[in-house]
Amino acid sequence: MSNGVTGDFSLSQWNTPHREALLKRLQTCFSAEDSRLHDACIYPIQTGGKRIRPLFLFAALEALGQEVSDDAYTAGAAIELIHTYSLVHDDLPCMDNDDLRRGKPTVHKQYNEGIAVLVGDALLTKAFEILSEVSDHHVAALVRLLGKSAGSVGMIGGQSLDIGFEGTVDSLERLTVLHKRKTGALIAVALEMAGVLGNASTEQATALLEFGKHIGLAFQLADDVLDAEEDAEEDGPPSFVKLLGETETHLAAQQSMSDALAQLTHLNSPQALQALAEFTVFRKH
Amino acid sequence: MSNGVTGDFSLSQWNTPHREALLKRLQTCFSAEDSRLHDACIYPIQTGGKRIRPLFLFAALEALGQEVSDDAYTAGAAIELIHTYSLVHDDLPCMDNDDLRRGKPTVHKQYNEGIAVLVGDALLTKAFEILSEVSDHHVAALVRLLGKSAGSVGMIGGQSLDIGFEGTVDSLERLTVLHKRKTGALIAVALEMAGVLGNASTEQATALLEFGKHIGLAFQLADDVLDAEEDAEEDGPPSFVKLLGETETHLAAQQSMSDALAQLTHLNSPQALQALAEFTVFRKH
Repeated sequence: MSNGVTGDFSLSQWNTPHREALLKRLQTCFSAEDSRLHDACIYPIQTGGKRIRPLFLFAALEALGQEVSDDAYTAGAAIELIHTYSLVHDDLPCMDNDDLRRGKPTVHKQYNEGIAVLVGDALLTKAFEILSEVSDHHVAALVRLLGKSAGSVGMIGGQSLDIGFEGTVDSLERLTVLHKRKTGALIAVALEMAGVLGNASTEQATALLEFGKHIGLAFQLADDVLDAEEDAEEDGPPSFVKLLGETETHLAAQQSMSDALAQLTHLNSPQALQALAEFTVFRKH
Repeated sequence: MSNGVTGDFSLSQWNTPHREALLKRLQTCFSAEDSRLHDACIYPIQTGGKRIRPLFLFAALEALGQEVSDDAYTAGAAIELIHTYSLVHDDLPCMDNDDLRRGKPTVHKQYNEGIAVLVGDALLTKAFEILSEVSDHHVAALVRLLGKSAGSVGMIGGQSLDIGFEGTVDSLERLTVLHKRKTGALIAVALEMAGVLGNASTEQATALLEFGKHIGLAFQLADDVLDAEEDAEEDGPPSFVKLLGETETHLAAQQSMSDALAQLTHLNSPQALQALAEFTVFRKH
């Protein structure tokens, strides 16, 4: 991750130990026995990624003045498992048909399509299984939140919109719904789960959720601008840049960003949260 | 379901209201909003099936002298959602490539492959989401049990063995492991979850789990005999009939069945459980 700095705060210094602890937690998910399936499950986990969602959870806990506990790493790992499975299934030939992911062969290219289906299913199942290991009084709330945000009215619902199964996405309203679900829901839930684990007050929980929603939208708007700069496909999927133009999309990203940051006044120590938000939205790749 | 009778007990009379309540619970899982994805999720749920796994859960609760509560229907629905998603994904062209399931077009034939992947993912996610709705003190145990039995060391692990990803399955030992995972784990977990919901004593919980394991094996042995009678494929997948011959396989099914029934002495009212076991193992289709 590049060096994001907010005042004296170094994001790269902050996130390194969290990323290491998260990776260790993720790897233990499939260490119970030797099997080729387990090797295949570890493969997309180890190829990395920015780990933005779990990092938001950790930063939000710190913003509440709480330590990042073992429960937090477990909850962060659960969200990352959901994100990773969704990429494995999205890359399948019957979906986006991608050969490469983060510069490496996708799971179905490295192994085969059947295994990619099973690996995705196994990561998804494991996400919920490990949530059962957090402190008993938090399990129900975390499972409910993750299930809703990852499911048919959340991330999977967004994917159904994205592949055109719910009709054409040709208005700003429908495109916003699409992204709120497809990418926004899993970012917002990281903030909500932090609220549960950190025993947030109602006011703090609301601030975290609103922050998460605005950041999710800002992230997608910024992503569309990056995509438009890198590769201006006329017949590509619908995007904010196509509907609004590049300048307006960039301005909308900045507006969502400042709406997000406005929520931080409700939190005690939002340094990491702010730095992470800025890194996420203003990144260059 | 055909009319299974043990003494004066009518299985078909017993199971009808349970099957209706279960279907209603399953349908509410995707009634939150109108979307084509939700219609597609309901499709494989409504095409039916024997509902053996949830029925085992309900019968086990009754065997413990407990009523079949709303929590039980939710837990039964969660298991059935897992079973249903596994069929949707198994039917995919990159897996078993089946065009028909229970006499109707499979999900990828009725819609398309991408939607079949998403429908499976949505059913799997929903299974865990609804488990968060049962009484708080049971959630963690139920999520943990279902996650393990459905996951990479359970059902999905069995599927990985079945498609040959872990090497050839050419011995009785490996074939037994395959089926213990692929079909056995999700039957056994129905009995274990009943033990949790019914506050079983340690002795009762052990009896239920052992019963579940024996019935799972008996079910698979009987299934292999049925398959051999209907369709003697020389180059089909490995089966007990191929390794043991038809007579030995039939005898092994009977032995597993009587091992299962021997466990019922530890339970108060095992009538439904016994009738269901006999129906499952000695069915003709």
